[in-house]
Amino acid sequence: MNSKVKGYAAHSSEADLVPYSFERRELRADDVEIDILYCGICHTDIHHVRSDWGKEEYPMVPGHEIVGRVKQVGKDVTKFKVGQAVGVGCLVDSCQTCSSCTDHQEQYCDNLVTTYGGRDRFDGSITYGGYSERIVVSENFVLDIPENIDLAGSAPLLCAGITVYSPLRRWKIGEGKKVAIVGLGGLGHIAIKLAKAMGAEVTLFSRSKGKEEDAYRLGADNVIISTDDTQMQTVKSTFDLIIDTVPYNHDVNPYINTLAPDGALVLVGYFGPLEPAVQSGPLIARGKSLTGSLIGGLEETQEMLDFCGEHNVVADIEMIDIQDINDAFSRLLNADVKYRFVIDMATLNS
Amino acid sequence: MNSKVKGYAAHSSEADLVPYSFERRELRADDVEIDILYCGICHTDIHHVRSDWGKEEYPMVPGHEIVGRVKQVGKDVTKFKVGQAVGVGCLVDSCQTCSSCTDHQEQYCDNLVTTYGGRDRFDGSITYGGYSERIVVSENFVLDIPENIDLAGSAPLLCAGITVYSPLRRWKIGEGKKVAIVGLGGLGHIAIKLAKAMGAEVTLFSRSKGKEEDAYRLGADNVIISTDDTQMQTVKSTFDLIIDTVPYNHDVNPYINTLAPDGALVLVGYFGPLEPAVQSGPLIARGKSLTGSLIGGLEETQEMLDFCGEHNVVADIEMIDIQDINDAFSRLLNADVKYRFVIDMATLNS
Repeated sequence: MNSKVKGYAAHSSEADLVPYSFERRELRADDVEIDILYCGICHTDIHHVRSDWGKEEYPMVPGHEIVGRVKQVGKDVTKFKVGQAVGVGCLVDSCQTCSSCTDHQEQYCDNLVTTYGGRDRFDGSITYGGYSERIVVSENFVLDIPENIDLAGSAPLLCAGITVYSPLRRWKIGEGKKVAIVGLGGLGHIAIKLAKAMGAEVTLFSRSKGKEEDAYRLGADNVIISTDDTQMQTVKSTFDLIIDTVPYNHDVNPYINTLAPDGALVLVGYFGPLEPAVQSGPLIARGKSLTGSLIGGLEETQEMLDFCGEHNVVADIEMIDIQDINDAFSRLLNADVKYRFVIDMATLNS
Repeated sequence: MNSKVKGYAAHSSEADLVPYSFERRELRADDVEIDILYCGICHTDIHHVRSDWGKEEYPMVPGHEIVGRVKQVGKDVTKFKVGQAVGVGCLVDSCQTCSSCTDHQEQYCDNLVTTYGGRDRFDGSITYGGYSERIVVSENFVLDIPENIDLAGSAPLLCAGITVYSPLRRWKIGEGKKVAIVGLGGLGHIAIKLAKAMGAEVTLFSRSKGKEEDAYRLGADNVIISTDDTQMQTVKSTFDLIIDTVPYNHDVNPYINTLAPDGALVLVGYFGPLEPAVQSGPLIARGKSLTGSLIGGLEETQEMLDFCGEHNVVADIEMIDIQDINDAFSRLLNADVKYRFVIDMATLNS
């Protein structure tokens, strides 16, 4: 039997989020039901609520940085037990048969089902996300959260964490490698921690002064003010990898100039035309790459969580009551958070 | 003692090439003296002669697709014997100690010495290229040409060949991979042959009809007219690698859309701003890369030549007398050559 759950939803692209009751499906054989303890607030949640990227389905219950404990499992579930700490990220299903799926890159599946605003493959119902008290997800899309790390701080790992972990792994970052991070926000601060934990020398690019203390505390070895040409010259042809977390259009050419031969600039924050024009010269003359990255597959997300368990990496968070969600959205748009909001889902019942 | 050699030189950026006599250095212990039999004409030669990319030194003797036979060797030379077929490409020296050099990527060395218009590391003299009867080069920058392949047709491999071979190797092209080539010219026609010899499925992108017959003869499996949106739709998200040989600005976004997830578009022909603006969305959403490639290191160039020997790959050439060099430059600018001009150096003495 379906079960009634409480959550918060937007009923249109202009509306505030308000309390909303809806149903979760009865467990299928491979389903895990999770009592949600915490859910991170991702910038993407705001884009979807506001229909910034095209038509959306309402009511919308956002949230894809979900952490909780298993309440119940379907009869065929083998990987999870009641009471276990688990997480759910941006995906709750995919076709499981295409080359992206069989290659453990479910995030590229043409028929992936997003955690909210997607359509269930079997019954066609709209998916509702983590701003709610419980969720029901196939065990193939549930992740094990290491018991030693802070559960609230681990919620942002499910999206922000894997978004920056995946390029660090793809470019084989470790000791002897030089990594730079553009932007110190939700993604950037985790990227510094992860790159440092992997053994890299880590530089933060920041447009303005004032971030140094935090950057060094998070693990950065250097901070370069990107608007200072003299400082930029000192890091010319330096970095093996740059992860650019900036969520708006900006000139990527000065960063490309700081890549070492064969280095890569990986965009993870801004979708749109890159202006001023990208210069092809440095790409050709030194084999540099301009590329991007989108979260990661399930296997890699689990690997990331295990890595965070081993190295005790979680996000720096500010916990909020769910009643403050609209204010948190406003503050996030002003970059007024260090460094990720996480909703304490217990407040749904307060 | 230095020796006098004949060649053809430009005396200014506006001047035609004319006969020119100059000196080659006396052999150092590690030097190889080569009787030049053939020299390919690269589009880059025209850019340098015309000072298109900045200040140049004149008189300039162009030519960096050099094939000939060893005439003499210095006392410490171990890799080459008198009479052996050898080649010289775009580089005649590099520092040999930086990380690019020790990593066999001499083309990225900050102190590399180009085959013409460079400065010798020891005596500071200007280097003169292959539009001449002989050249003297350190054995470290001399390549072995397999005896089974046509020598004249092998000359363009030294620049055009390695330029497209290197990205094919970097992206591990082989059976089961799908490769597309943009543009059917000096670079493009060799790229088709090499990709096919590696076992890939090869597609040619062409802006206009009329290239199909040649493309299939060279080894292409498919030809897509890039100005036909319907045809472009049929190859959406298809290619593991696209090598874009077009030497002028053009919209790269339609080609990026035809890359498979994690695929790469490699620019090898056009240096400058990419307009219209590159869209970051497809780079992020499917992990696609926009990158470039510049010739290759010496080790990889030798590997390419050996591969061409095994698979009997050479360029399709039109042989010219050196007296027709200025006409050949004009025709090359009009893309009126199938597919590479090669100078028969014996005509220097006719």
